[in-house]
Parts: sequence; C-alpha cells; structure tokens
Amino acid sequence: MRVLKLTLAYDGTDFAGWQRQADARTVQATLEAALEPVAGMPVKVVGAGRTDAGVHAAAQVASVTIASPLGLDELQNALNATLPPDVRVLDIEPANDGFDARRDARWKTYRYAVWIGRVMPPLLRRTAWHVTHRLDVAAMNAASTALVGTHDFAAFQSAGSNARSTTREVIDASWTARGWSGDTIGEVLTTAEGASLLSFDVTGNGFLRHMVRTMVGTLVEVGRGRLAPSDLARILGSRRRSEAGPTAPAHGLTLQSILYTDAPSNLDNCSVR
Amino acid sequence: MRVLKLTLAYDGTDFAGWQRQADARTVQATLEAALEPVAGMPVKVVGAGRTDAGVHAAAQVASVTIASPLGLDELQNALNATLPPDVRVLDIEPANDGFDARRDARWKTYRYAVWIGRVMPPLLRRTAWHVTHRLDVAAMNAASTALVGTHDFAAFQSAGSNARSTTREVIDASWTARGWSGDTIGEVLTTAEGASLLSFDVTGNGFLRHMVRTMVGTLVEVGRGRLAPSDLARILGSRRRSEAGPTAPAHGLTLQSILYTDAPSNLDNCSVR
Repeated sequence: MRVLKLTLAYDGTDFAGWQRQADARTVQATLEAALEPVAGMPVKVVGAGRTDAGVHAAAQVASVTIASPLGLDELQNALNATLPPDVRVLDIEPANDGFDARRDARWKTYRYAVWIGRVMPPLLRRTAWHVTHRLDVAAMNAASTALVGTHDFAAFQSAGSNARSTTREVIDASWTARGWSGDTIGEVLTTAEGASLLSFDVTGNGFLRHMVRTMVGTLVEVGRGRLAPSDLARILGSRRRSEAGPTAPAHGLTLQSILYTDAPSNLDNCSVR
Repeated sequence: MRVLKLTLAYDGTDFAGWQRQADARTVQATLEAALEPVAGMPVKVVGAGRTDAGVHAAAQVASVTIASPLGLDELQNALNATLPPDVRVLDIEPANDGFDARRDARWKTYRYAVWIGRVMPPLLRRTAWHVTHRLDVAAMNAASTALVGTHDFAAFQSAGSNARSTTREVIDASWTARGWSGDTIGEVLTTAEGASLLSFDVTGNGFLRHMVRTMVGTLVEVGRGRLAPSDLARILGSRRRSEAGPTAPAHGLTLQSILYTDAPSNLDNCSVR
C-alpha cells in the first residue's frame, strides 16, 4: 500500500459539491468510482477542502492509499481516461505514510470572481457572480484588512455547521480589479462602459461553512456603500451571522490552492503549482 | 421603422452556429425568436460574422430593422429577459438607414486559444484547444507574419465554400503566450510544468470558411516543428487546401470584435468595446 497526493481540478457547475452523498453526483464519489477498478478495491479519497455544490477547483488536493502496481504517470492517465471532462487529475505525487490531505493542509487559497456590469457575459456565467451595481474597490480593500489576522469568524459561518472552534487565521484577503477581453483569457483592460471583473483572493488556515462567500457578500455591501469599512470589526466582534451580509452565490468561487508548508514565502505564487 | 446595431456575446458550445438552419438551435434563430414579440412582427437579424457551430463571440455585431416604440435600454432589457443565458445583448445603438452589419463590416478580429499541457483544465475545456505537444511560439510568430498582407487565402479555405474571391487582407496575426492561474481570470504566470495558454489574434477584412481555424492548425504544425516558418509562403502560393495543416477545432475560437471604421488606429484596443 502506498499513499498518494493527487492534485485535482474541476468545474463545479454540475457537481453537488465535493463530499459523497446518496443519489448525488459529487467529485469525491466520481473519483472513488474511477479509482476502484484501477486499485482493484474500494478506495476512500480524502479532499483538503470540502467544496460546496457549484464551487470550482483549480488545484484541490486529495490523499488516497492504494495498492496499484501502476506508475504514477500511468495511474494519472488511467484516471483521466475514465473520469468525465469536468474533473481532471492534474498531478500525482508520492506522499509520506500517514499523509492526510485534509488534516495536514496548512493554508488554503480561494478566489472569488465578481462581474460588475449591466449584462452577464455568457462565457463568465458559470464562474463569476453578476453584480449590477458600481462597487468601490478601495473601500472593499479597506474593509478586507479587518478580516486579516486570527479572529473568531462565527459571524461569517452559515447555520448547519458543526465546527468545534470558529477561530481561523486569515493571512491575505484582497480585491483586484481586472478588465476582461471578452473571452476566457483575461486581460487587464476595462471596457468602455466601466464594466469589469473583480477577484477576491483569500488565504487562511481554514474556512468555516460559507465563510468565503459570506465575506464576499459582506464586502460587496461595503462596495455598494451600504456598509462602511469600519463595520467589519463590529460584525466580526458580534459573532452573529445576522450582522454580516448575504452569502454570495457558489459559482463565483474557486479553490485555488492548498499549501502543506508552514509559511507561504510568496503569496503571489500560491495560486500556481 | 428604424435600424439598430446590436452587440452580442454568446457561448457557442450549445449552438449549431450563427446562421438559421432547419431543426437546429442557432444564434440567429434564437435572436429572431426573441425579437418577434418585441417588434410585433418577424424580424431578420443580419450578423457581421457567420460563426460556425461551437464558435463563441465576445462582441458579434448584428443589424435589425424594427418598428418597436421601446427605448434602446428597454429593448435591451426585454431581449435579455427572453434570451437564454448563453446569448446576451451587450449593447444596442441606433444606426444609419441602410446599415448592414455584414456588408458594412471593415475589420473583424478573432482570437483562438490553445492550452498546452498534459491535462486539459476543466474550466478551459469549452474555450481552448488542448494540445499536448510543446510548441515553439517564436516559430509560430515568425510563420504568422507571412499571413499578414493581401493574399489569396484559397489554401486556408475549407471545401464547401461559395466565396467569389479568395483574396483577403490580414492586418494582424500574432501569438501571445499567457500563463493561467487556474480559474477563468487569466494571469501572466506559467505553471511549474511549463503548461500554458496561447492566444492567436488575427484581424482581417474578412475570412473564408474555416480560415482562422486552418491558420491555427497550420501554425501549430510549425510550433511542433513539422513545418518551418518559411513553408507558409509556399502553402499560400499553392492555393491548395491539402498543403495547409489540419483545421483546429471550433471551440477554441472566439469572434472578438467587428470594426466599422476604415483603419484601426490602435489594434491593441480592437478587442474591447
């Protein structure tokens, strides 16, 4: 038996999330079904982040323990030949005995995309939230700084969670305004009408249920002027979900990367493997 | 009656192309069906570029002549409320009497996206061609320069076309290497494995059937080293389709913009409205 670290990408649109559920198409169940014939036995896949229904992944990490005699490249090819095109194994590496993708993860980076404009471009509709209001990005960034640090994020957690502690450490939370050239290859250009694509990048040691989406929903309220940047400290301190803004929709969110080292030396490189 | 200029975006994945056909879902037919109740009569939509099945548009232009009393914003909202989410009206402007989006178009810009890497990222699978070979982008750019100018492009035209002349003017044809951060917001980063996203931007006064896709298929042969940059002049001169490379798949292609002025002063801005 050997332990492997899989790096995975998926288009979350047609998945009911990461985690196996009865009668639902999930990423975990799809991977486990592809692994079973290769491994010759049922295999449990442990994912670093349990993404919700509709959430995408650019580089999710999973651990598996299997006895397959295949080489890593052969195994990757066999899995990708079986898997549907909306989930791909980007890489397979050997891992140490006992490696657990979820428990051992130190830092997770998520990106949330917001399209500001009157009309939603069709090629962005699966991966960005459509907001029709003008947003003050500087105010959103000022508000985001209040989220950086070790805080009790109970106000940003949806009901139905069973997390023991609601304290998490966030080491980066910032918005970047990007233009968009109309296809899926982004460019830093702003359209004549002022429409643009924003991205929110957030890195932390863990995230509560809907935490990134509630941060985004709250920060967009700041961008619209319905909350002030200074309200973030009050919302955090309240520990009440009702004080924060709405939960932004799932389809704007992408799990960008998982780090297993203690301290990211260069956050700018986090999102690329 | 008044003439209107519509700017349209669509995800070509689920369309059998622009042009109306019996028993097929096309962009033209979908727009005409949305316009009829608004105009109170059947409306013919003339598109600047007749994109093939699977080809996308960031800013297609169409002309219509209608008698609707609605204001332009109301008309746009009414159309977008009726249209499916894979086609959107980005803008409506008044046009001069006699304006014909197809006949009056002076310059069209297309972009073709190629993903080079072992595995196709799911979020790119609808909009980029997956090429698993390493490509020499400098050689591809050297070869592209042979396509710029006024040439007989018969060698780059698929069978079944009824174009009277096969001479076209191409004023820009170039490849750009881009990295990709894993989501649909591109960034100029290259992944550790050397995977990357290339885009081919081409502007001309018109394009023959499958001309851009045959250019791309031929230039990728150059990138793989199976043709030399100097072969392009010979292929053009042969006027024989059999001399050029394969036709690249439709889904990597996006119609980026249509210009109605004589000379684009700054090509870098062509792709953005």
